[in-house]
Amino acid sequence: MSGSAETIGDLGEGATLARIFPLLPESSRTILGPGDDCAIVDVPGGRVPLTTDLMIEGPDFIIGLSTGYDIGWKACATNLADIAAMGATPTALVVGLAAPSTTAVTFVENIARGFHDAAKLLAPGCGVVGGDLSRGPVVMLAVTATGDFDGVTPVTRAGAQIGHLVAVAGQLGGAKRGLDLLLEHALVDGQPNPAAVDELWAAHPADIGAQLRPEPPIAAGRAAALAGASAMMDVSDGLVLDARRIATASGVAIDLDLAAIGSLEALTGGEDHAMLACFPPLATIPPGFRVIGRVASGEGVVVDGAPFDARGGWDPFAD
Amino acid sequence: MSGSAETIGDLGEGATLARIFPLLPESSRTILGPGDDCAIVDVPGGRVPLTTDLMIEGPDFIIGLSTGYDIGWKACATNLADIAAMGATPTALVVGLAAPSTTAVTFVENIARGFHDAAKLLAPGCGVVGGDLSRGPVVMLAVTATGDFDGVTPVTRAGAQIGHLVAVAGQLGGAKRGLDLLLEHALVDGQPNPAAVDELWAAHPADIGAQLRPEPPIAAGRAAALAGASAMMDVSDGLVLDARRIATASGVAIDLDLAAIGSLEALTGGEDHAMLACFPPLATIPPGFRVIGRVASGEGVVVDGAPFDARGGWDPFAD
Repeated sequence: MSGSAETIGDLGEGATLARIFPLLPESSRTILGPGDDCAIVDVPGGRVPLTTDLMIEGPDFIIGLSTGYDIGWKACATNLADIAAMGATPTALVVGLAAPSTTAVTFVENIARGFHDAAKLLAPGCGVVGGDLSRGPVVMLAVTATGDFDGVTPVTRAGAQIGHLVAVAGQLGGAKRGLDLLLEHALVDGQPNPAAVDELWAAHPADIGAQLRPEPPIAAGRAAALAGASAMMDVSDGLVLDARRIATASGVAIDLDLAAIGSLEALTGGEDHAMLACFPPLATIPPGFRVIGRVASGEGVVVDGAPFDARGGWDPFAD
Repeated sequence: MSGSAETIGDLGEGATLARIFPLLPESSRTILGPGDDCAIVDVPGGRVPLTTDLMIEGPDFIIGLSTGYDIGWKACATNLADIAAMGATPTALVVGLAAPSTTAVTFVENIARGFHDAAKLLAPGCGVVGGDLSRGPVVMLAVTATGDFDGVTPVTRAGAQIGHLVAVAGQLGGAKRGLDLLLEHALVDGQPNPAAVDELWAAHPADIGAQLRPEPPIAAGRAAALAGASAMMDVSDGLVLDARRIATASGVAIDLDLAAIGSLEALTGGEDHAMLACFPPLATIPPGFRVIGRVASGEGVVVDGAPFDARGGWDPFAD
């Protein structure tokens, strides 16, 4: 940890992961390893998706802007979205929670309530089956989710083919607008003002909700898989960055239509957890999806015919 | 988070969890929920164990006493032990890692190498299939493991019956001795001295190894299940505290023989990740297990005929 050594801050998330992957032990049960929304593990009689995410006070949420309930809700919803983005139905979560000893019990109870209500609304039947509670310097949630493919073939990022349609279910841009509103109006000298958050909720319920209590279209993920989606992911780091991930994994270009997307904000804002999917030209696009582009030859993301190289995404070490 | 509110430090881990469990969403796929080493989730064609654990800089390790390699090794080994303690063979891990941006990349690579070597030694074929990397104020690892029951009935904490034998595989007490040595000789004014750690490794390899790079008897867990073990867990919080958990879950007393255990230190020290199992009287106790007591009527833990109420265990908020 000496000052002259290369840091993970220097490298950023992607390059650090690229350094780590070759070092990790391989599982003989791996059907799909790191790099997609979920890993897929071979089990007797089938395969299960497995995904894990960290939500850390500071980079991922600010207490006072988010309540405990919001934090639990969002941690639950985002992991459900990763399972849905493979075409599976979420079935179970395990939750690790670290918090300072001085944390109010009601705060932790409210995190649990947020999990409860998000699971009930977004993925009825899915629940928290285990976890771990520990002491930490800040509040940190580590959520792992699994699910049931129930007969569908897992939909990865790698199957998009030239000529396929690109479609999205769920909203885009709201989470970014909500974040901007919170940072501009509810953070005074770095201190959160919960009363200002209440006012923003009242004035901009859709955008604040998209940021603090997202409602990813979980059922749309499975519907897309049943409709024959060739590639899918949830938009957690911004449409451009995530579309580029599909393009790279599939060896194609993703050609997007800005008018269909609606705004530049929707193109570059992150965290909406919309389902981004590619469909064969003759597939029946499921309800809830709207077509926003087409898979083309080439690489990267093209918007209205021009390469779009703005980074437009979220790196926990860069931002 | 106001100062007058009840804190999770006031309540401790167990009581906080008791407050949270009723609040969490239930999974319709739960075969076994919170409270054992793993949850068990129904999947098409079978059931899978799922366990998660946090390891946090400060409460769980001190960088400079532990290397990155040690931290990865221990995080891997302890999660493998939870899977083994259900009678399953570990198959896959997902790993969430949070670290400050200033963390050296080599440190993170060494964590990965520790995972690699621990999995290779302790559970060949099991590997890391996914994960998440994020920024945090300290180094935090969140590991989730799954496995394969491969035809055996999961062994929970609740099946011990009066007259069954209590046996343990693996060492007891070494992790506590190793920790005491490290805290006494390698921590100067709260600052770790890596050179002193090297000297301790040379002088006390078994005890320092038990603390920094534990080698839980993973294969013994499955062997116990195949031999008909009626209850099992890995000893992660001290033999007395963990034996009491089996006693409580099974509605019996656990009567231990101090001479067979070897020392008071082995009785109360934690973190050795030995396998503690109960067997029917006519079962063939598998190699590696030694009998240390018997299941009796009553409640709690009895040592040499007298109730043993010393807490003898680890609570992340109390210690």
